[in-house]
Amino acid sequence: MKLTDLQTDSIRSIKKLQAYMRKNSLDAFFCADIPNVRYLTTFSGTSGFCLVFRDSAYFITDFRYRTQADSHVASCETVIYTGNLFDFIRKKFFRRTAGKQPSIGIEDSLPVGTFGEAESKLTGCKFVRTSLVIEKLSSVKYKSEVKRIRRACSISGSAFDVLTQEDWVGKTEAELSAMLEFNQKILGASKESFDTIVASGPRGAMPHGVASAKDIEDDEFVTIDFGCFFDGYASDITRTFQTGPGVKPALMKIYQVVRDAQRKAIDAARAGVKARNVDRAARKHIEKHGYGKFFGHGTGHGVGLRIHELPRVSRISEDVLEEGNVITIEPGIYIPRLGGVRLEDDFLVTKDGVVQLSHFSKDADYYISTHGTH
Amino acid sequence: MKLTDLQTDSIRSIKKLQAYMRKNSLDAFFCADIPNVRYLTTFSGTSGFCLVFRDSAYFITDFRYRTQADSHVASCETVIYTGNLFDFIRKKFFRRTAGKQPSIGIEDSLPVGTFGEAESKLTGCKFVRTSLVIEKLSSVKYKSEVKRIRRACSISGSAFDVLTQEDWVGKTEAELSAMLEFNQKILGASKESFDTIVASGPRGAMPHGVASAKDIEDDEFVTIDFGCFFDGYASDITRTFQTGPGVKPALMKIYQVVRDAQRKAIDAARAGVKARNVDRAARKHIEKHGYGKFFGHGTGHGVGLRIHELPRVSRISEDVLEEGNVITIEPGIYIPRLGGVRLEDDFLVTKDGVVQLSHFSKDADYYISTHGTH
Repeated sequence: MKLTDLQTDSIRSIKKLQAYMRKNSLDAFFCADIPNVRYLTTFSGTSGFCLVFRDSAYFITDFRYRTQADSHVASCETVIYTGNLFDFIRKKFFRRTAGKQPSIGIEDSLPVGTFGEAESKLTGCKFVRTSLVIEKLSSVKYKSEVKRIRRACSISGSAFDVLTQEDWVGKTEAELSAMLEFNQKILGASKESFDTIVASGPRGAMPHGVASAKDIEDDEFVTIDFGCFFDGYASDITRTFQTGPGVKPALMKIYQVVRDAQRKAIDAARAGVKARNVDRAARKHIEKHGYGKFFGHGTGHGVGLRIHELPRVSRISEDVLEEGNVITIEPGIYIPRLGGVRLEDDFLVTKDGVVQLSHFSKDADYYISTHGTH
Repeated sequence: MKLTDLQTDSIRSIKKLQAYMRKNSLDAFFCADIPNVRYLTTFSGTSGFCLVFRDSAYFITDFRYRTQADSHVASCETVIYTGNLFDFIRKKFFRRTAGKQPSIGIEDSLPVGTFGEAESKLTGCKFVRTSLVIEKLSSVKYKSEVKRIRRACSISGSAFDVLTQEDWVGKTEAELSAMLEFNQKILGASKESFDTIVASGPRGAMPHGVASAKDIEDDEFVTIDFGCFFDGYASDITRTFQTGPGVKPALMKIYQVVRDAQRKAIDAARAGVKARNVDRAARKHIEKHGYGKFFGHGTGHGVGLRIHELPRVSRISEDVLEEGNVITIEPGIYIPRLGGVRLEDDFLVTKDGVVQLSHFSKDADYYISTHGTH
């Protein structure tokens, strides 16, 4: 069987985890977090576990997923369990460990109920809690992953282009959201990567204003934050456009500040730079114009198999950007009762700077200039 | 402020949890599971915690959700935390507990990382792991909840009706799925309640065949399993329709067996009956016709704030149906390489039987008889 690029890279992921295990004296690592399982195996189903030893790796699932696992999982040996998961694991993997007390890494995300079950069944084992191990490994993307993220960005961009050909004014936020999500799916996305935000007029002051029943009106700003999954990988894009020429000058001014702030952050980002300095570049510009207290969130985050990943790009981030990170840069200004502006794109971090993966006009009048006012 | 029906009922939910706490000698209960938090508070955001004492209850969230919490949460006092959550909880609630060692119930779904944090900060407290406490309470629905599920079912039914007016043949499964999801949103759903399944022809043999790039063809069965959220509550419906008169007789026969099996299960269901006997009623009919080994899943499950809830309606279920449960009844037969059939509706359990909440024709030829063959 010829392996796909993702399958080949999943073998590298297992090796990276095994290197971590050796360094941290772990005999085994148990992973139940679905995006992390996908990273280690390419398995896209919703029920499966990885049990990795220093020189072998197993994907454990139930009979429903046998066919899917057989055709997808190349990095691990697939084993099908029946009955209690940890009874099965004990019998298959930990039968002859008397006196050895193997140490098993578990993830912070594991539910306490599952952990309690593991403890009670795998009595000879020592469990070691770990935090963000696979999340850290997967924050540096393979080319195969960047390719998927780029494609997700491209689908989102095209879907948005189709949306700008529609008449927004008179439609509700929820209608625009439904249309945009439909466009993404028709263009090849499996689904939206999060609940689409459409926040128009004064609602634009809410950074997370999920699309509501409010009508889009003339001469207001509409902020649309959206994305999709393609082959497991996410895009995350925000645009703010005006629906007419009569948007208040105070808001038009904010628009330019946000646009320039995003530029400053883009210019500051490259491998080796502290992520908080990228945040700082955007924030400093916004503060300089007196809007500091209206920018209440971080400048960005990693994106990949999850919509929010490492590295964090915020004031308090301790992360340093690495070559292969894919991050969002998304400054915003939100003024209660008036409205808000946010611009967001996805970027691949390189040693010389960043490569923009998402593409769409950032002119505030894009919608009216291509579509016409009525 | 006049309370909504859901808000009034959330006050009852807190009281039910407090009764459980008294019965089980718990001084407090910490809930971090988002659907459970919603059940206790009506809060629809994605970040918030409940800390319930025997005679008071608190909803703990961060500043981003202050406005939303103030206007929604009636059952708890809202408190806004900053910094470390458990530092905040210790200072605010457990400062004067020296020597008392209050016992705090936690849920099995709590991540071990969060639990570890709680243990290290709330040093004077004793933690008691609980399993499915709020899940059990919320399996008996209030009228306010049934109303929302009924509406979700009604939106899904109308959206499906619109879909049957489209020409299916020649479209891909993914296109049908995108259109159906769009229809649900335009009709008032906030989103789909799970990834829509469209499994046509031989793909119908996969119980969970998420919509693919396969074209829908003439003279095959198409199984569509779909649902939406309305005001937080889910619908879950499956129909299998033929796209032409020439579906293989073996499959047409299976259709009738599944339809009759669903009827048997419906007739068996009422408050006081063991859920596994409802499963038994459907399964016995399918076994009698020789398809027992092709019905590899349970007959149904509860539905509400989650798409899968208590009670379980399966062979191994220990649950007894109660008045106010809302369950799916969804037998199916799946024959490798040939195809499959599943029919699913949502039902309110009463003392006399069940009331069907989802409505749509179950005639295999509904699509071709209303739409015409080409």
